[in-house]
Amino acid sequence: MTDLSPVLDRADQNLEKSLERLFDLVRIKSISTDPAYKADCRTAAEWLVAALMEIGFDASVRDTPGHPMVVAHHDGATPDAPHVLFYGHYDVQPIDPIELWENDPFTPAVKDLGDGRKVLTGRGTSDDKGQLMTFVEACRAFKEVHGSLPVRVTILFEGEEESGSPSLKPFLEANADELKASCALVCDTGMWDSDTPAIAAALRGLVGEEVTITAADRDLHSGLFGGAAANPIHILTTILAGLRDETGRVTLEGFYEGVEETPANIKASWETLGRSAESFLGEVGLSVPSGEKGRSVLELTWARPTCEVNGIWGGYTGEGFKTVIAAKASAKISFRLVGQQDPSKIRDAFRSYVRSQIPADCSVEFHEHGGSPAIQLSYDSPALTKAKNALSDEWAKPAVIIGMGGSIPIVGDFQKMLGMDSLLVGFGLVDDRIHSPNEKYDLKSFHKGIRSWARIIAALAA
Amino acid sequence: MTDLSPVLDRADQNLEKSLERLFDLVRIKSISTDPAYKADCRTAAEWLVAALMEIGFDASVRDTPGHPMVVAHHDGATPDAPHVLFYGHYDVQPIDPIELWENDPFTPAVKDLGDGRKVLTGRGTSDDKGQLMTFVEACRAFKEVHGSLPVRVTILFEGEEESGSPSLKPFLEANADELKASCALVCDTGMWDSDTPAIAAALRGLVGEEVTITAADRDLHSGLFGGAAANPIHILTTILAGLRDETGRVTLEGFYEGVEETPANIKASWETLGRSAESFLGEVGLSVPSGEKGRSVLELTWARPTCEVNGIWGGYTGEGFKTVIAAKASAKISFRLVGQQDPSKIRDAFRSYVRSQIPADCSVEFHEHGGSPAIQLSYDSPALTKAKNALSDEWAKPAVIIGMGGSIPIVGDFQKMLGMDSLLVGFGLVDDRIHSPNEKYDLKSFHKGIRSWARIIAALAA
Repeated sequence: MTDLSPVLDRADQNLEKSLERLFDLVRIKSISTDPAYKADCRTAAEWLVAALMEIGFDASVRDTPGHPMVVAHHDGATPDAPHVLFYGHYDVQPIDPIELWENDPFTPAVKDLGDGRKVLTGRGTSDDKGQLMTFVEACRAFKEVHGSLPVRVTILFEGEEESGSPSLKPFLEANADELKASCALVCDTGMWDSDTPAIAAALRGLVGEEVTITAADRDLHSGLFGGAAANPIHILTTILAGLRDETGRVTLEGFYEGVEETPANIKASWETLGRSAESFLGEVGLSVPSGEKGRSVLELTWARPTCEVNGIWGGYTGEGFKTVIAAKASAKISFRLVGQQDPSKIRDAFRSYVRSQIPADCSVEFHEHGGSPAIQLSYDSPALTKAKNALSDEWAKPAVIIGMGGSIPIVGDFQKMLGMDSLLVGFGLVDDRIHSPNEKYDLKSFHKGIRSWARIIAALAA
Repeated sequence: MTDLSPVLDRADQNLEKSLERLFDLVRIKSISTDPAYKADCRTAAEWLVAALMEIGFDASVRDTPGHPMVVAHHDGATPDAPHVLFYGHYDVQPIDPIELWENDPFTPAVKDLGDGRKVLTGRGTSDDKGQLMTFVEACRAFKEVHGSLPVRVTILFEGEEESGSPSLKPFLEANADELKASCALVCDTGMWDSDTPAIAAALRGLVGEEVTITAADRDLHSGLFGGAAANPIHILTTILAGLRDETGRVTLEGFYEGVEETPANIKASWETLGRSAESFLGEVGLSVPSGEKGRSVLELTWARPTCEVNGIWGGYTGEGFKTVIAAKASAKISFRLVGQQDPSKIRDAFRSYVRSQIPADCSVEFHEHGGSPAIQLSYDSPALTKAKNALSDEWAKPAVIIGMGGSIPIVGDFQKMLGMDSLLVGFGLVDDRIHSPNEKYDLKSFHKGIRSWARIIAALAA
């Protein structure tokens, strides 16, 4: 058993220097979406390679058609130590609108909020430089105390996460043997709240579709043709209305295949989180849960599939009125998937349903807008249980296993391409303003994040 | 009984001069929507006054806040002769795009189409200068032959029909006693086809509504909120889909109050017109009648009420995809009314229905876009029967009593404000290109139109 206590002490002692190193990284303007910062992205990768080599990693900058990857390896303390892949990204979001920043986004600082909280300000302090540095600094503390790491570690830092990760899949494919580990550690998520650590185990998938219905070959006058000519807006609205029944369930054939009920103990733990429909929806001016009846808002957003119309348009939409029967009407529709739902089967079921509703003299066109399955990690795998206990010890509060309404594509890629489940642990808070001006990361997130990772890798080795 | 035959002969002999007079009127650029042509509008009114005085009318230009009216009176041959009000408009549509005209729009000409048809070209030759001059020239022929008119005639020519007739209602109100007659003759409609005269007896009314549904107080991320937060597009599409049942009937409570079945003989006459669903809808790329089942396209467009969504919008409608749950969704909806349907009752029924479908935490706003009842003239009044027989005699083919899918507001105004039904007789053809470049009026429409009016006023006097 690794002696953890001196490692945690070392992390505490290192904190000031850890912050200095993070701030060095934050100062590098590694905005991946803007070609003007291409050299900065490489500088960030090189900085990370140097930082990792300093603590004994075999690290290198690896070119891609876009911004480079950083790959680093470190042996475990014993030859049979488990092997983990840690993932983070060194690129950051653009900083516009710059005038809304209270401090320069690339001049990080510690800011005392006066209520006992200290925060680190600057672009990337949370997403994802601050988060990835919690892991690097945990490794450093281990190395400094024990001269080794309790697990074998491979690190993958990406520089294109904020621009859709175009190089990632080819890179995983080309380097699968090098990157494959028993488990991936992904640090790009958040805590439940500032006191409660969380591990995300369910991420919803997505099927995006665009549909355009064409009736007449031109717009028609509703006086001359109304009552006789097909109106594509009627057809479309009837189709969309038919996608859900009165209980909020999606009506597509086979839609719920692969959807499993959330385990009772997980549901019970969600009940304790105190997120009522009133509190959750109240923040956006609503109060009544939509969607399936008889389920909590956490279950609805984390563990149940949905169908949403994200956009609709057709006919005359300007000022005043025009008595037109439009030739075309369109909508963008997305399905959030859970469990083992199959995106292509759901796309097919949707298209079959729509086609079945189109009158003989009308036509329909579909346009695909992405599809990815849900990620459903085991709620009680050994790795998750170990990490959960480690986090609970560090934060003196039980860690919660949560779901996420949206998807994190990398987790699916790791699963599909490297056959490897992920452990999603992160220390971001909902008020971190990632992607917005005045991004921050709580000093406590950073400090206890480092200690958390130290505990987790020790636990995974045990 | 008036001796009609010499009047018809006179109309034939006058034709060349009648054309010259019409062309004089067409040359006046009386575009009512464009302030640059304000003086031309007055010139047209003055020209008409002079033309009417020349044939014995007591005629005058009458100022309004907009373009002037022309009002003229002529006694009947006997003191107890029926009194008719003839309505037409001297203003014309703009001429853009000018480059598409084959001849100057204000230099009228007779053009031989080579297939036996001759047409009069120029803006207003059909709508409505050519049409109103058929009546004036019929009066002239009567006066020249008999020195009198068989009926007492009041004429009202408007100069703002193409700009929404803003001065008309106040003018009717202020001059009701002067304008009221036993029947109005309105010459602003068309024939069934180039051989078949028509009288329009049913004009659909209209209720226009705009509805905006608001759910959350901002746009939401569909991953974070999807499944729990109300989606206004779902609410809207469900509401719109519910407006019509599977048989095409409108579901609003009381919607069919005041809707009567078209008399069997009228329906039978429509059947003989040979307008099949295939031919009518085929012109616009359709083939299957929408709306109520088991009714012909003529019945659907002339004699049945409808509900049409004329526009819909909400959420993300640009390129690509955005997983947004919109805060708002809107639609523009119109109802075409028939018979005695009450616009305000239908508006109320619509709003009640919509309100009943709005979840407790969402809201709805309505915006009114006009409302007017249908015009349902008697299918067998003495005046209509006389006019029908007169037209049938002139064209050697039974005149058909038709409906019109759209409304002609003046007919409702005459009914409501002057207590007077209208007789809608016109000689326009579907290929007259009114409101478009290269407007024309068939010489036959003009010539036989004059003869038709001569026959009609003789018949009305009998």
